Amino acid sequence: MAGLVMPEPKADILARRAQIIADLRAIVPGEGVIDTETEMRPFESDGVTAYRQMPLTVVLPSTTEQVSQVLAYAHANGIPVVPRGAGTSLSGGALPLADGILLGMGKFNRILDIDFANRTVVAQPGVTNLGITTAVAHEGFYYAPDPSSQIACTIGGNVGENSGGVHCLKYGLTTNNVLGVEMVLITGEIIRIGGQHLDSGGLDLLGLIVGSEGLLGVVTEVTVRILKKPETARAVLMGFPSSEAAGACVAAIIAAGIIPGGMEMMDRMMIHASEAFVNVGYPLDVEALLIVELDGPEAEVNHLIERVGEIGNGLGCLTLRASTSEEERIAFWAGRKAAFPAVGRISPDYLCMDGTIPRKALPEVLSRMEQMSEKYGLRCGNVFHAGDGNLHPLICYDANKPGELEKAEAFGADILLLCVEVGGVLTGEHGVGVEKRDLMGSMFDETDLAHQQRLKCAFDPNSLLNPGKVFPQLHRCAELGRMHVSGGKLPFPDIPRF
Amino acid sequence: MAGLVMPEPKADILARRAQIIADLRAIVPGEGVIDTETEMRPFESDGVTAYRQMPLTVVLPSTTEQVSQVLAYAHANGIPVVPRGAGTSLSGGALPLADGILLGMGKFNRILDIDFANRTVVAQPGVTNLGITTAVAHEGFYYAPDPSSQIACTIGGNVGENSGGVHCLKYGLTTNNVLGVEMVLITGEIIRIGGQHLDSGGLDLLGLIVGSEGLLGVVTEVTVRILKKPETARAVLMGFPSSEAAGACVAAIIAAGIIPGGMEMMDRMMIHASEAFVNVGYPLDVEALLIVELDGPEAEVNHLIERVGEIGNGLGCLTLRASTSEEERIAFWAGRKAAFPAVGRISPDYLCMDGTIPRKALPEVLSRMEQMSEKYGLRCGNVFHAGDGNLHPLICYDANKPGELEKAEAFGADILLLCVEVGGVLTGEHGVGVEKRDLMGSMFDETDLAHQQRLKCAFDPNSLLNPGKVFPQLHRCAELGRMHVSGGKLPFPDIPRF
Repeated sequence: MAGLVMPEPKADILARRAQIIADLRAIVPGEGVIDTETEMRPFESDGVTAYRQMPLTVVLPSTTEQVSQVLAYAHANGIPVVPRGAGTSLSGGALPLADGILLGMGKFNRILDIDFANRTVVAQPGVTNLGITTAVAHEGFYYAPDPSSQIACTIGGNVGENSGGVHCLKYGLTTNNVLGVEMVLITGEIIRIGGQHLDSGGLDLLGLIVGSEGLLGVVTEVTVRILKKPETARAVLMGFPSSEAAGACVAAIIAAGIIPGGMEMMDRMMIHASEAFVNVGYPLDVEALLIVELDGPEAEVNHLIERVGEIGNGLGCLTLRASTSEEERIAFWAGRKAAFPAVGRISPDYLCMDGTIPRKALPEVLSRMEQMSEKYGLRCGNVFHAGDGNLHPLICYDANKPGELEKAEAFGADILLLCVEVGGVLTGEHGVGVEKRDLMGSMFDETDLAHQQRLKCAFDPNSLLNPGKVFPQLHRCAELGRMHVSGGKLPFPDIPRF
Repeated sequence: MAGLVMPEPKADILARRAQIIADLRAIVPGEGVIDTETEMRPFESDGVTAYRQMPLTVVLPSTTEQVSQVLAYAHANGIPVVPRGAGTSLSGGALPLADGILLGMGKFNRILDIDFANRTVVAQPGVTNLGITTAVAHEGFYYAPDPSSQIACTIGGNVGENSGGVHCLKYGLTTNNVLGVEMVLITGEIIRIGGQHLDSGGLDLLGLIVGSEGLLGVVTEVTVRILKKPETARAVLMGFPSSEAAGACVAAIIAAGIIPGGMEMMDRMMIHASEAFVNVGYPLDVEALLIVELDGPEAEVNHLIERVGEIGNGLGCLTLRASTSEEERIAFWAGRKAAFPAVGRISPDYLCMDGTIPRKALPEVLSRMEQMSEKYGLRCGNVFHAGDGNLHPLICYDANKPGELEKAEAFGADILLLCVEVGGVLTGEHGVGVEKRDLMGSMFDETDLAHQQRLKCAFDPNSLLNPGKVFPQLHRCAELGRMHVSGGKLPFPDIPRF
């Protein structure tokens, strides 16, 4: 990150700044265009505060028509655009560009339709994740994906990053819970994809849009599926003498045909940090803690709680405690949800990584991460969505010690490369953004990357939407197309990396 | 369908046929290239036997390398390619082209990997749907999507059509159960998308590939998720005095937070036809029958069976019977699964339609379909995946009566347009193919269609893969790209159809 290279700002755009701002004000009147340093300051970074960049200007549209006009203007004038929800990205996906418009979608904050019979909600992209649940809770419904930032993060941002949460094992990521979007293309054209129904005719673009990190268009409306709140939910805390034993328990639960609502794992360091922070009664004499939540009809939940306990006991579980009230269940989760701030109390700085591995590789990955920790001389705490193999290693460092950030970054990159090596991927639920952009080559070969970029070109032929994110190298679309038709071979070595 | 217009065969390809076949034999030796009329006959149509067309030649590759070379050859020589699995398509998706290679994937019939810890199977595309379940059944696992043709249809075809089945309500369509593919592009390049893990970095192309009906590439390997067989499954038969009452029961079950493993509805005509055919004891004095299957741990299933019964009784259910053995459960389904052949016994010919509606529109759609039936003077039976709004009206006609096929076709089109009118879609699980191609304009405007085609162009710049399917009008890719960059407006009225 210290060595992050972003596209060179175009001098002609910087020179035209005053005119551009005036033109944008004609489209979005009033307070909708921000150009002073003080007012733009809150937009200079997202959740990855190690990267900062002031944008050319911030535009805050409030209608789809305005978004359409702003994008068409940017397209006609060759100005990059970085879309932004609440700015909680953990991969730098909303990092501004010096020569780019930062398009904040915060004013799109209305819920447009609630349909209990079809179990759908239509929301504007600036509605928060929790706001959807709040709007339907009175009828006993909720929206399933629950990132830790759910009070702040927006559904539009969730679509951009394909966000997850502790309940994704059973209920899926954002991509499994979004039914349709309205999206504005860079040309200003407005398209609708999916809707309140199961299938769509023609090519299914929805999966491509979800997780596209602002590179394909700007979503102005989202239709999501809502679920009935389970009749009961109970959580079990299980302490183990080793991470390997806890990992074996996770595998055994899944192999038994049980899909818990959530299944999280914390290592010794994280148990102690969280317990010191929130005091919920986690066992302190164990090496690994599992939190397993079962939800559904009461009869089923009680039956499964028993089976999970049997499986745990059979695998050397040292402590076992099942929640007997809703308060206790929430307390069990409180420590896990506070894990990141808890680390902030025991280390001056930390990097939160995000990678995914096939479940069975867990023991190998844990033991190799321990070796890396020794090699780099940096502590690394682990919390993970154990059920679906999504790791969140937290690398502790001190930015005031020279060279330590760089060591932490190298450690983080090694972890992600290890994920790929064992058959996993660089990301889980935080996106690629700028943080993991330069590692994409470890995951995809040039053919794969060129092909992904041809799709990007089909949406955004001049590469104006969020350039510098996701792809380590942007090829020119016309060139990509010509080579494709003529059968020429990629890569094109003469096209510079930003 | 009587008026189906396909792309004009290119005379120069027909003239080069002998050379093309010789060239293809150099790539796929032995019996892999078929050119005699007798041997090509089985490939001239798929499940929609009303359409027939002999291909230029049939090629049956057995390795990914051969597929790559055949596609690169077709690309270099401008020859269309129609991929084909088992040929069970119900929308004419595998209908050959007179100037095109019919690429049969039947030799790709091996299971490459079974991984119980990660719950995944890697299969070649020619493995049958049921073949995957058979391969993992000894450990108590199965593959969830279960089209009625599952004995014959292949996993590659399922990917192409995003196939469903009676268990899709709870377990999702193919797109929800496929984790990754290896695919050959028309250029011969081989790409890998997804894998044994939850997420992918970069653009998620997998959803786009699933359901793309052979227009984007040829899949040569599929990784699917397998599930543990539920501990118990029981089915309930409920007879109702009207389709509306049965529809209300479906809505009430879902609203109660119950997601059955399957929830199917049959109308009076279909109940009688099926019962006469398989004799499973369906009630004959009701207007509509619901088959509701609950699966999971025994305690849960018994609890839910009771609740579903209460809901049914509260809504005027006339007969109610829950299965008490596995044999009885299978018998309950036997009638539903035999519905199509059962109609074949009471009508000389029938058209099977496939559309999807928002669940709450069911009563309105049923009553308007009855009016249409009177208007056209044709009987129409209804079986549907009631839980997810996927309708399968079966329109009875006699092809020997002049004009009756055309009437049936018009009736079918009216039903699909009605689906769109109430906020649904033209397709459910059978794809667009040629059958619904010319209705796409009722669902998508020119901007949407042009945008879908730009994605097609990113894969297949010369429109060689399965042309004449899905899109009512194919624009030239170069033109589409130019108009996109320059901001020109679609449609291009001067570009001819095909």
